[in-house]
Amino acid sequence: MKFHPSQHIFKSPKVHAVINEAIAFLNQTPIHQLPLPEPFIGTGVYILYYLGNYALYKKIADANMPECTQPIYVGKAVPKGWRTARTGSEEDATLSQRLREHARSIKQGAGINIPDFMCRFMILKGEESSMITIVEAALIRKYRPLWNTVVDGFGNHDPGSGRYDQAKSEWDVLHAGRSWAEKLRGKSPDLDGIEIKIKNALK
Amino acid sequence: MKFHPSQHIFKSPKVHAVINEAIAFLNQTPIHQLPLPEPFIGTGVYILYYLGNYALYKKIADANMPECTQPIYVGKAVPKGWRTARTGSEEDATLSQRLREHARSIKQGAGINIPDFMCRFMILKGEESSMITIVEAALIRKYRPLWNTVVDGFGNHDPGSGRYDQAKSEWDVLHAGRSWAEKLRGKSPDLDGIEIKIKNALK
Repeated sequence: MKFHPSQHIFKSPKVHAVINEAIAFLNQTPIHQLPLPEPFIGTGVYILYYLGNYALYKKIADANMPECTQPIYVGKAVPKGWRTARTGSEEDATLSQRLREHARSIKQGAGINIPDFMCRFMILKGEESSMITIVEAALIRKYRPLWNTVVDGFGNHDPGSGRYDQAKSEWDVLHAGRSWAEKLRGKSPDLDGIEIKIKNALK
Repeated sequence: MKFHPSQHIFKSPKVHAVINEAIAFLNQTPIHQLPLPEPFIGTGVYILYYLGNYALYKKIADANMPECTQPIYVGKAVPKGWRTARTGSEEDATLSQRLREHARSIKQGAGINIPDFMCRFMILKGEESSMITIVEAALIRKYRPLWNTVVDGFGNHDPGSGRYDQAKSEWDVLHAGRSWAEKLRGKSPDLDGIEIKIKNALK
């Protein structure tokens, strides 16, 4: 049989349709303050919104009045063992844990306050969990959230003892105070440069 | 606002529908012998069929006459950097490479011959690449291929120098000869036990 790789390419409009359906669903879910009132089971995708008066973020906060429409950060929590084809365990609380970690980062970061943040999230489990990565990517492409696309490092984790010789992230320079980030000893990025990048991005 | 995690669960019949659509597409793609005649670009999912006369696999070979309907192995090749939300690069040839690696394993394995194997594959790129892991999992659930569910180790890689103290896989005991597997020095699984497992599974 002749070999034509193009005959083997699968395309379906359903893929794009279900991504859009998931984003529309997420945008109508109840909105909450951080941290969420209690832990919950599930993996999925979430959006953080900023509504405070940090000067550099004024344009973002304005866009979220009267309604939250401009994310400052989009993230995901994928099932453990995801690459090995298991679908989400019923016990996997990574989404809830991730949001708690973010709340802690924001509380410790200078210049921003946790009551100024709102959160939307969507649980994707079973077959739907296959959509997590692609829905997160679509949200980032659609909204270009500042902490995903301009200011680097909000989603970073504590690198752990013995690995503190690396540099602080841009986020940790701008919002200094995160406990583990203060231990980092590498050469920090320049604050002026970060502020200029933000002004250019939000101009 | 009250907190009800159940309001945040996204379910869509489109997800299941597109998985079924992808499997139906794969099952009508042109079928090829291994190795494929030339390399190609793409990530995705593939099926291997066995049609030879290895006694233990007779029931599988019979099921593939006159048409290939019972996979002996299902696998996937995901885009590099997949977890970090990039979609497949146009240059990613991992599916093609994976099938070449399988052809090499089969050529070196005792008791089986490469002309007795047929292959179907499906390229999933862009947004469709989000479906790779879930389509592979659905195929394994649907067909319970012997080398995915009973005989372990066909898809293993050379662990690399300095790591040959581990045990051979069941596949490498049953089909001895794969060059890197012959270097493994751990205690091998018992051949009789593997044969009994296969007989029970195909009974």
